[in-house]
Amino acid sequence: MSEAGYCPPEAVHAVAVVGAGVIGAGWAAHFLRMGYDVVAWDPGSGTAERLAAFVESAWPVLERLGLRPDASPDRLRFAGSLAEAAAGAGFVQESAPEVLDVKIALLAELDAATPPDVVIGSSTSGFMMSDMAARAKTPGRFVVGHPFNPPYLVPLVEIVGGRGTDQAAVTWAERFYTHSGKVCLTMDKEVPGFVGNRLQEALWREALHMIDSGQATVQQIDDSITYGPGLRWALMGPMLTFHLAGGPGGMAHMLDHFGPALLQPWTRLTAPELTPRLRDLVVTGVGESVGDVTVQQLERRRDDFLADLLLLIEKHRRD
Amino acid sequence: MSEAGYCPPEAVHAVAVVGAGVIGAGWAAHFLRMGYDVVAWDPGSGTAERLAAFVESAWPVLERLGLRPDASPDRLRFAGSLAEAAAGAGFVQESAPEVLDVKIALLAELDAATPPDVVIGSSTSGFMMSDMAARAKTPGRFVVGHPFNPPYLVPLVEIVGGRGTDQAAVTWAERFYTHSGKVCLTMDKEVPGFVGNRLQEALWREALHMIDSGQATVQQIDDSITYGPGLRWALMGPMLTFHLAGGPGGMAHMLDHFGPALLQPWTRLTAPELTPRLRDLVVTGVGESVGDVTVQQLERRRDDFLADLLLLIEKHRRD
Repeated sequence: MSEAGYCPPEAVHAVAVVGAGVIGAGWAAHFLRMGYDVVAWDPGSGTAERLAAFVESAWPVLERLGLRPDASPDRLRFAGSLAEAAAGAGFVQESAPEVLDVKIALLAELDAATPPDVVIGSSTSGFMMSDMAARAKTPGRFVVGHPFNPPYLVPLVEIVGGRGTDQAAVTWAERFYTHSGKVCLTMDKEVPGFVGNRLQEALWREALHMIDSGQATVQQIDDSITYGPGLRWALMGPMLTFHLAGGPGGMAHMLDHFGPALLQPWTRLTAPELTPRLRDLVVTGVGESVGDVTVQQLERRRDDFLADLLLLIEKHRRD
Repeated sequence: MSEAGYCPPEAVHAVAVVGAGVIGAGWAAHFLRMGYDVVAWDPGSGTAERLAAFVESAWPVLERLGLRPDASPDRLRFAGSLAEAAAGAGFVQESAPEVLDVKIALLAELDAATPPDVVIGSSTSGFMMSDMAARAKTPGRFVVGHPFNPPYLVPLVEIVGGRGTDQAAVTWAERFYTHSGKVCLTMDKEVPGFVGNRLQEALWREALHMIDSGQATVQQIDDSITYGPGLRWALMGPMLTFHLAGGPGGMAHMLDHFGPALLQPWTRLTAPELTPRLRDLVVTGVGESVGDVTVQQLERRRDDFLADLLLLIEKHRRD
């Protein structure tokens, strides 16, 4: 099905939120803030009440960030069945528990209940759509749309299709999520865990190893991030951070200086060989990323931000 | 030598900064902000001028964060020799290039030039003091004091002694760094890379693998952090973040729900087996870390912070 087969992403009026746990409820709050009708469905008992209470408690913070015209918590409705939720929606966001068999069965059910010109996104943390859509009759409109918790505040959504997904559906999803206020990272090919969770998971596994072997406590793990690299990562990712670790020489100098550290046993993760090709890929990539902004200008920007951030954190720790 | 052998950490008036590259210069700015005399030394050409220019450019941001009484950039002096720098200091911070042989030779030289009752801290990114102090005659006063870039803004310093280090020197360093405005993470035993860099390095290695295999671009790596988990890590570390990923059930529920993901190929880092012992270590550790603060209260705190942070980042991206 071509992209023309789907209704324009900007014309979507109602979103179905299927699964209303921590992530699904967060999506509901996000879409409500952005001025959509939200029809939720979840088979758990008491979910409707919990979802309404959650949206109410999240609303003040969403107001502070700014609501789209006509956004209202009153535009949330809880459907009596999956079919009812899916029937009137211009987009479906699935956030069921992270169990592959559950996902496969649910996506097949959703496929049958949802008009064929509607794209369906899955919040899966790391499964591949090729596996999840195994039993869907129209796999072309299924994409991964992986958010980060809480989805109503953290902007990122990772988008990737499966073997059976139309490129048009991936493009549509990117346009829709962008229009709905998210920041999209669209991948060309499926990788288990996508990008953000692979990086998080590497860190998490090393943390578990350190706790397991008595090298660090839970508190030390957290302190080592929140009082250290975590402060920088709110503004600059690991690549740009290391671009600034090399002084005026930037990433090139950094790789030449700290490259040998890749041979050190500084984590249980085996490092790739820093071939000239990989070195150039990284240096060129950073160049494309920063454009003509100098290391000095980036440092100034980082420092201004960090100072404001430290004052902000101090205020929140005090409160 | 007992702790009583060192002058009280609160009585230190002057700090020697040995090595004035990116990290050494950052330490100089930090100690100046905190009201110390700073005597710097670096064998590179033009370093004195670059250091003075750097401190001048960093000063406005330090003023914004607040200066200690009598803090002034005029209290920076550049020494003509290592011996001159070390002679009058109550504490020495070494920040030479990250090459083990360089560190070993420099620490031996510093040892000879520094009065024996003065503690010497090294900014090494990951070497063990047992290795670096190999040729020092009084290894008892040598500790690792590993900062994060930039040291004048990022609070964390990781402290750990080597085989020959007196426990008194470790305790002294912790008191001194704390008094000088840093946040200390003191380790019981040496581990290459300490805590923060092991976690960062795991993430960095996975990022390099993804770039190497064409799974992600440099820009995508950075976006996946800055628009995603990086936002949370400025306030809450990976353990507390996952405590909030499990809903009201917290870390225990999260481990039970996402624990099987440890078996997924979500990074090249092999995960430890999630034994009942490890699970309990993590759950108990989180419990100690958060005390009687509920998941709901933590979520409220996180959301308030994230909203302010998003507004702050928007302002900085606009500027």
